[in-house]
Amino acid sequence: MKRICFLLRVKPDRLAEYKERHKAVWPEMQEALRETGWHNYSLFLRDDGLLVGYVETPDFQAALDGMARKEVNERWQKQMAEFFDLGGEHADRAMSPLEEVFHLD
Amino acid sequence: MKRICFLLRVKPDRLAEYKERHKAVWPEMQEALRETGWHNYSLFLRDDGLLVGYVETPDFQAALDGMARKEVNERWQKQMAEFFDLGGEHADRAMSPLEEVFHLD
Repeated sequence: MKRICFLLRVKPDRLAEYKERHKAVWPEMQEALRETGWHNYSLFLRDDGLLVGYVETPDFQAALDGMARKEVNERWQKQMAEFFDLGGEHADRAMSPLEEVFHLD
Repeated sequence: MKRICFLLRVKPDRLAEYKERHKAVWPEMQEALRETGWHNYSLFLRDDGLLVGYVETPDFQAALDGMARKEVNERWQKQMAEFFDLGGEHADRAMSPLEEVFHLD
């Protein structure tokens, strides 16, 4: 299992709504994430909109590719795109892993 | 177990050395972290110096307080302070948790 961390930016004026949506992630979206290898997945939000993702997965690219093939992900990302400054690009296509420089089990 | 994420900034001109030091964290420092409740602890570094910490712990304040009482932590933080823009403040006194807005086991 690899540990992955990525960063995104939520529009500062949409933080409250972003949080509300994530209290009710569709069950079929959660199921798709589990099926494609997203484990112990958390999102953390700083009050200026910096979003930190942390996930454990055997292969992050495979996890991204797996979700890219899920119809529910297409629907989810389409309605989430307006929360990010990505020119309409879906957030899951902008998840670049940071370098892990330390780990303690 | 709570999941904690915090952010720090490493001086951009000290990244290489910061990474080197973290390949060889003193065994007694690792032991102190384990003893004070730091589990599955990772540090991730972006190439501009943004540092993301992720840790699982029963009580983050207790984990910080526990380390603050360890002599090895005082030595470690003292020699790491120059890597951060904190006016000489030790990094472990600047670890403010972000809000977790989503989690999937």
